[in-house]
Amino acid sequence: MVTHSSKWTIATLGSHSALQILKGAQDEGFKTLAICKKGTEKVYKQFGVADKIITVSDYMDLLKIQDKLIKDNVIIIPHASFIAYIGPANIEKLKIPYFGTKSILEHESDRNKEKKWLEAAGLKLPLIFSKPSDIDRPVIVKFHGAGGGRGYFLAKNTADFEKKIKNHEGKEYTIQEYILGVHMYAHYFHSPLTGETEIMGFDKRYESNVDSIGRISARDQMALPEEQIDPSYLIVGNIPVVVRESYLPRFLEMGENVVKISKKIAGRGLYGPFCLECVITPEGVIYVFEISARIVAGTNPYIHGSPYSWLRYDEPMSTGRRIAREIKNALKDDKLKEVLE
Amino acid sequence: MVTHSSKWTIATLGSHSALQILKGAQDEGFKTLAICKKGTEKVYKQFGVADKIITVSDYMDLLKIQDKLIKDNVIIIPHASFIAYIGPANIEKLKIPYFGTKSILEHESDRNKEKKWLEAAGLKLPLIFSKPSDIDRPVIVKFHGAGGGRGYFLAKNTADFEKKIKNHEGKEYTIQEYILGVHMYAHYFHSPLTGETEIMGFDKRYESNVDSIGRISARDQMALPEEQIDPSYLIVGNIPVVVRESYLPRFLEMGENVVKISKKIAGRGLYGPFCLECVITPEGVIYVFEISARIVAGTNPYIHGSPYSWLRYDEPMSTGRRIAREIKNALKDDKLKEVLE
Amino acid sequence: MVTHSSKWTIATLGSHSALQILKGAQDEGFKTLAICKKGTEKVYKQFGVADKIITVSDYMDLLKIQDKLIKDNVIIIPHASFIAYIGPANIEKLKIPYFGTKSILEHESDRNKEKKWLEAAGLKLPLIFSKPSDIDRPVIVKFHGAGGGRGYFLAKNTADFEKKIKNHEGKEYTIQEYILGVHMYAHYFHSPLTGETEIMGFDKRYESNVDSIGRISARDQMALPEEQIDPSYLIVGNIPVVVRESYLPRFLEMGENVVKISKKIAGRGLYGPFCLECVITPEGVIYVFEISARIVAGTNPYIHGSPYSWLRYDEPMSTGRRIAREIKNALKDDKLKEVLE
Repeated sequence: MVTHSSKWTIATLGSHSALQILKGAQDEGFKTLAICKKGTEKVYKQFGVADKIITVSDYMDLLKIQDKLIKDNVIIIPHASFIAYIGPANIEKLKIPYFGTKSILEHESDRNKEKKWLEAAGLKLPLIFSKPSDIDRPVIVKFHGAGGGRGYFLAKNTADFEKKIKNHEGKEYTIQEYILGVHMYAHYFHSPLTGETEIMGFDKRYESNVDSIGRISARDQMALPEEQIDPSYLIVGNIPVVVRESYLPRFLEMGENVVKISKKIAGRGLYGPFCLECVITPEGVIYVFEISARIVAGTNPYIHGSPYSWLRYDEPMSTGRRIAREIKNALKDDKLKEVLE
Repeated sequence: MVTHSSKWTIATLGSHSALQILKGAQDEGFKTLAICKKGTEKVYKQFGVADKIITVSDYMDLLKIQDKLIKDNVIIIPHASFIAYIGPANIEKLKIPYFGTKSILEHESDRNKEKKWLEAAGLKLPLIFSKPSDIDRPVIVKFHGAGGGRGYFLAKNTADFEKKIKNHEGKEYTIQEYILGVHMYAHYFHSPLTGETEIMGFDKRYESNVDSIGRISARDQMALPEEQIDPSYLIVGNIPVVVRESYLPRFLEMGENVVKISKKIAGRGLYGPFCLECVITPEGVIYVFEISARIVAGTNPYIHGSPYSWLRYDEPMSTGRRIAREIKNALKDDKLKEVLE
Repeated sequence: MVTHSSKWTIATLGSHSALQILKGAQDEGFKTLAICKKGTEKVYKQFGVADKIITVSDYMDLLKIQDKLIKDNVIIIPHASFIAYIGPANIEKLKIPYFGTKSILEHESDRNKEKKWLEAAGLKLPLIFSKPSDIDRPVIVKFHGAGGGRGYFLAKNTADFEKKIKNHEGKEYTIQEYILGVHMYAHYFHSPLTGETEIMGFDKRYESNVDSIGRISARDQMALPEEQIDPSYLIVGNIPVVVRESYLPRFLEMGENVVKISKKIAGRGLYGPFCLECVITPEGVIYVFEISARIVAGTNPYIHGSPYSWLRYDEPMSTGRRIAREIKNALKDDKLKEVLE
């Protein structure tokens, strides 16, 4: 087998976190390939991160060029857009070497499986109320498939819920305990080679319009039509943040426990980058709302390293580069099969 | 002509973004000069960015020492405070070599010319209503010359406008479509030498008091006197942010189009650093409110490089340093005239 | 005396800002020691910043191992958690070499002494009203010892105060002028060796729940029970920010004045890292609420240097490293006694 990184090409779809994935791969000595939708190539060219660009009219064209890519020693790095566009079913059948445990994806996308996983790991999740009459505290009502959280509303009790749900007839929804606290997205990397779960950094999302309604005074909010001021949660960017240092032991343990349980439910378990999407309450309780079992865009502020990665590494270590480093280390130790599927 | 950067001095007024301009110039081998108002020299001394400091009692004194500066091979880099203090008319007549197209400034400062420019570039601008009776959606009413946006108010229709405008008799105002979304300031650099428009980074402003009123509960806001809770927009700092990667192709195109149109309206057109001041809606639509045709303070978080500049350059590349790099490249290729006026 | 940094060990409690203190010490050639509470060691091991870890069941155990630490040439760096856990009285009696002026701590913790200090330095502080009947403007009512600011409320006048205080019978409180503006935390380092006060950076805190209530629309806030929406101020992280460059001369002067006055009130005065906790109003007035006479967690985003420290130093200079650099410089010049107590 070819064991030097320069003989391998690291590839991903040109979106989401591809810039750091490709830049990181170059820094580790790999060749890089961006698979871009027509019209987006310029970005990957401008930043010089792609040694080669393949332009497609549809991301699914990736499936048609698999044999060629395999011959060229290509390794695919998945990110959220990759998973969304190619789809878990196609990823399962993907023949190109792929970084990550494919069977973990269903535990991320299926709400019930995700809940079981996170609870087994000892994490604190918000309650779900299966019937409106069960509501015994403030809740947030989330509509299924609502783009960017459109129409989500808060209700303080069953009566309040019944009144407000009238505007949403026929929609499917989940009634979730409303946790008031600040968001904190924790980025991890689990190395199957060392067995260690590393803290890579933290971010907070920058969401439209919810991160801007607070800039409108309460009086002016009342003056605007309700449908315009209704909060929505379209992620348009990410902001760097560091967490209170005394919380790090808990965050580290949470990440380690998630990995531990993953090994019981999905093959070799979760490895590579992942993220716990948390809310911290005024009492310092950390609630987990979701897990992302792959690289998140929240690591994009740290293309040149995060405050945390600089502690451990004496060079700029983005999460994208950390992936390439893992593959390079596996090549060196002849353990490539342990990091690819 | 003297072609080595060490024979030239890069100078600017000691304010706004002078720290990165001077530091960047030093890193590219130039000598540096800060022209400081009495009492502000200490900052430029402390950070070691100014090889020489000239203290003035009034920034306009710059005009009196022009001949001396020209003899010393000084190049002036304009920033917002430079333009505000010296004034477009004086800049037009400035004899010291100046980085940038002077005639672009009127297209930035004149609202109508700016509107024409941005619309010709295909950008989406908020609507302007010329008469109150035209109002057919929520609007923000902005008063001319209002320091930091004092008194700006929202109105949901003509009647609401008529009621609220009564408190502002005699003031001139603009009625602008109110776009609810989050702010995103996109930093660019256009190189006349390579013809390329580079994305340098993004920030969000930190404004008083508007970025703090959301920390007051709606109930408490109601308790405060209206005049104290009224939003104002004094810029007191900047916060780093990265943008959703799938938006980059659009941002790049927007920057390129602005440069393309600028060449039709102002000499050699816009070059060097500039910024598009945007709001992104929950639908992912990017509105442009303004263009800054020079370096913005929003690049100050990136004195050691932004996530984006680290992708392209293997060294810390602030926007200030990028300017000096362009001048250095021009010197090398004997094209100094192409980057100075 | 041993003058090379490698013969000395820099130590602190494993919390607050210990990661940067220890990493910075390593970068300056010191050995490092983390004194960790059982269960937190893993973090300091993972990031590789502690050459040695001592696990204690209670931080006060530090007092029992003093003789051993002194024999091992250990120097203690205090941070907020260090001061909170060990306590000023014990710190006063501490025999291990300690970085900082111990007698400054009472001027930080005693509200009256702090007020005198800051006012003597010419800083602008919010007014305190000693009786409710004195209230002549909006105020914030703060309860003594309220964890994370629980129950703090705003009142617009005496009548409003009298109505709201009824829910808080028996509590001790302070009535403070309410200053509406944005928070800005300014980090400094004063070097007793050079006599210079350096600006190290700025941050804004990330607090639960107050930094998230603005994401709830005014209508929804009204729908929630008052006790849940009540603002609280638990610090859960920090966000990097840069300040408007034209404010730097004022911030520098404020820091210098605080140091100048400190020399009149506490031995050799304040040296090493400190922080002024400010609010900037829409008029650009800088109010100071508090001083922290030691390293603050707000410097944690800058483990690899802040935009400001990169201007002055050609290497990553965290505040933690700046401390170690000072000690190293003192060792070199045989002036260790000038930086330790």
